[in-house]
Amino acid sequence: MLFGDRLAAAVRETGVPLCVGLDPHLARLPAALRAGFAGRSGRAGRAAAAAAVADWGAAVVAACAAARVPAVKPQLAFYEQLGAAGMEALEDTVAAARAAGLLVVADAKRGDIASTAAAYAAALLDPDGPLGADALTLSPYMGLDTLEPYLPVCRAAGRGLFVLVRTTNPGSAAIQAAGAPALARRVAEGLEAIGADTIGESGFSAVGAVVGASAAAEAGALRAAMPHAWFLVPGVGEQGGGLAEGLAGARADGLGALVVQARSATFPSAANAEYDESWPGWLRTRISHLANDMRAHHSVSAAGGAGLR
Amino acid sequence: MLFGDRLAAAVRETGVPLCVGLDPHLARLPAALRAGFAGRSGRAGRAAAAAAVADWGAAVVAACAAARVPAVKPQLAFYEQLGAAGMEALEDTVAAARAAGLLVVADAKRGDIASTAAAYAAALLDPDGPLGADALTLSPYMGLDTLEPYLPVCRAAGRGLFVLVRTTNPGSAAIQAAGAPALARRVAEGLEAIGADTIGESGFSAVGAVVGASAAAEAGALRAAMPHAWFLVPGVGEQGGGLAEGLAGARADGLGALVVQARSATFPSAANAEYDESWPGWLRTRISHLANDMRAHHSVSAAGGAGLR
Repeated sequence: MLFGDRLAAAVRETGVPLCVGLDPHLARLPAALRAGFAGRSGRAGRAAAAAAVADWGAAVVAACAAARVPAVKPQLAFYEQLGAAGMEALEDTVAAARAAGLLVVADAKRGDIASTAAAYAAALLDPDGPLGADALTLSPYMGLDTLEPYLPVCRAAGRGLFVLVRTTNPGSAAIQAAGAPALARRVAEGLEAIGADTIGESGFSAVGAVVGASAAAEAGALRAAMPHAWFLVPGVGEQGGGLAEGLAGARADGLGALVVQARSATFPSAANAEYDESWPGWLRTRISHLANDMRAHHSVSAAGGAGLR
Repeated sequence: MLFGDRLAAAVRETGVPLCVGLDPHLARLPAALRAGFAGRSGRAGRAAAAAAVADWGAAVVAACAAARVPAVKPQLAFYEQLGAAGMEALEDTVAAARAAGLLVVADAKRGDIASTAAAYAAALLDPDGPLGADALTLSPYMGLDTLEPYLPVCRAAGRGLFVLVRTTNPGSAAIQAAGAPALARRVAEGLEAIGADTIGESGFSAVGAVVGASAAAEAGALRAAMPHAWFLVPGVGEQGGGLAEGLAGARADGLGALVVQARSATFPSAANAEYDESWPGWLRTRISHLANDMRAHHSVSAAGGAGLR
């Protein structure tokens, strides 16, 4: 099945367009896990921290599966900072998530010339590679020709891409909103063309876009430019956006925006004894609340009808 | 010492502005190394391939040191495709290169929001991190604010950045040359401002730019926009550019352009029995020829005077 259809089916089945981000900030792990690597440094310290991150990832994945969340998004930087041991933790977390039926978006934001892009596709998306994620975030700065090496594995193995279009950080507008038409708009039109032969029965292609929630005012125009793209929407929760902003780019039937919650889904906003002492339970409760709250505000029927309640 | 000065000193000392790229395409490794992993797959196959890549990397590093090449540039995608074992091979290669006195540019082209950028800085540049490279390539699409988290380690540990400005691939112009002024020009001006407080005695800052050799016609204007930036110049050799194009962005005294040769420095262009049978010697000869050829055409004096002969 093509990726656009896989994601549409997962959102319909679970009833919630939520993607929980895994950003394992070491200082924000629960105290019980931090004790495993506190005060240790060097390769041994990284290995101990990676073991804690793997335990934490397993718990987040279990909480997502229990809450019927359709997708998770590990942010690779937090694993890479732990070296080879971190990559093993990432491989374990991705394998656990896929085994639990979750779709995995590897948040890597790679972007390079063709011969290098083929190696990234093997590294991150290929089912026979070390990670085998379901989808991958990419950067378009080097040109849209750099996306082409990823398309064979998208077609052959139901994999997908989310290409940076419009992000949420303070300096993004100076690059992405510049020009007439704006760069983001031109990238969007290019992605629509590249994804054209990967459109499934759901009407979604394998070539999606990262469109941050703070760009809600532009979301309608970007949806018009990319009618077949899934939007991956960061910027809700700790980055400040609300659910309505997150869903602003959805299609008329309510599908098409997959809202990311990362730190807000997995860490308390302040010191929290329950979190430090019984963190797997805290994660289950938090993620279940987030998913149910989103279900209460945004309906996605199994038959395909959907919309903001 | 600040990175701009470190690189200037290395180029003056070795007399050649060359950076050898390590792009370990598995199919292009010498036959003796390919025999170590041929026909194997899965995790064991990746571990065997990573061992071959580490052996190859050690030989490339030794050849660069023998030829007095100042810098190497491992392309991370080729290591990532081998999973955790690949990251160990990369760590070993970077450590060997730094031990041999070479500057290491980690070619990662990362780019993400601040909290994630800090994790990438820890992963790739921090001397206490797993890799501890001397410099890192980054992508500016998400905005120049995303570069700031890298600056503390640049200042504290003499690390540097090379940010994508103008690349060499066919689709690059549609993004980078679009707008008036062109996006590449606006990024260049932003990089000059960000690097302003990292300028050393050489006149170079810690914030450099990737400017491909096929953009030679634009190199003068980009040099004017970024008078204090080191240019990292891919696109010479197998990608088609010549040495004069590669050096087009150099400062009037001949410093400022670090020319990358990757596949052309490390692989034969066609089947080659000598390469397959005695590849460490083949690498030494090839890289020595490349470096001496560049020395013959471009003079860099120890006193700082330099220029195309």
